Amino acid sequence: MLTVYGMADSGNCYKVKLALEQLGLAYRWVEVSTTKGETRTAEFLARNPNGQVPTLELEDGSFLPESGAILHYLAEGTPLLPGDRLARARVLQWMFFEQYTHEPSIAVARFILQFLKVPDHERLPALQQRGYEALAVMEHHLETRPFFVGQRLSLADLALFAYTHRAAEGGFDLAPYPAVQRWLDRCRAESGVSEMPAP
Amino acid sequence: MLTVYGMADSGNCYKVKLALEQLGLAYRWVEVSTTKGETRTAEFLARNPNGQVPTLELEDGSFLPESGAILHYLAEGTPLLPGDRLARARVLQWMFFEQYTHEPSIAVARFILQFLKVPDHERLPALQQRGYEALAVMEHHLETRPFFVGQRLSLADLALFAYTHRAAEGGFDLAPYPAVQRWLDRCRAESGVSEMPAP
Repeated sequence: MLTVYGMADSGNCYKVKLALEQLGLAYRWVEVSTTKGETRTAEFLARNPNGQVPTLELEDGSFLPESGAILHYLAEGTPLLPGDRLARARVLQWMFFEQYTHEPSIAVARFILQFLKVPDHERLPALQQRGYEALAVMEHHLETRPFFVGQRLSLADLALFAYTHRAAEGGFDLAPYPAVQRWLDRCRAESGVSEMPAP
Repeated sequence: MLTVYGMADSGNCYKVKLALEQLGLAYRWVEVSTTKGETRTAEFLARNPNGQVPTLELEDGSFLPESGAILHYLAEGTPLLPGDRLARARVLQWMFFEQYTHEPSIAVARFILQFLKVPDHERLPALQQRGYEALAVMEHHLETRPFFVGQRLSLADLALFAYTHRAAEGGFDLAPYPAVQRWLDRCRAESGVSEMPAP
């Protein structure tokens, strides 16, 4: 059976849970807290030398880190990853957008407010600005489309749903982004898409 | 013919050039400067609403942004992207590591020193620490392997070669990382792997 080493209230880990549940795959979840230093122990670093969750343990005992790589591995050959070459690249386009632009602003603002609990942190204004810019890019794209790529849910939606549906925890107001809100509702309507636990 | 909108001294753009040259594909390069605001014009935002280079224009006139997605699109079905499902996921593992952990420290330090030219910038100490942590993860991995995935050059190597071979421009000393240095030499020995232009 697959084993996920993850932290339940981390969006990057929650994405993996979403994909496993969408795909109906059996898995074991081992809770590992980054905030308690549990990803920096010798035991954990043997699984992932980069000391991050999520890390997936495959049935042969090998380990695969990086949420984007795990999602891609799980979804190959399923409807969550389109068969067409350009459509697959577009799914990756939005997954890289999420990891490079969206997560480092929206998820980091959430971490500062919900985990560090420092509401006047000096980085927050710049993170808010970059997060709203990311939301504007998503709004523009979703104004004319039901999902990020094609006509159905893909890994691109799962990756972006994670921190977007809890953006308020990072201090973001989604009211000016109606297409993003409609897309969140469309994702929620899919079976297997549940909310992330509160921090 | 494929057209790359890119900035020659950006490592993210240079990766795309490396892949095109490794694959022997014909392309046109349109120089677009982020530092002169050329990615924020209405004309450019119509190509990529996220206002970033590289952006690839395909032969049908559509546009594909995000270096990782472009690399994947170009390399599908070639030896730069392995056929095995887990090996493909491992290539993505290192590409996401590069975009989430390596580039935001090593490339940003290089940007501060070479483009902003602020050697006492307040963010540099933290960027240096995170950059050296990323190099340590690479060193550990490369101590027992010739390339990041399997026995030959893949997209994972091209993605990580870009900012690593110019890490000195971000103030990083590679002397304590002999396996990384040997891997850089192995990459340089491949035909089509040229150096990135100086900033």
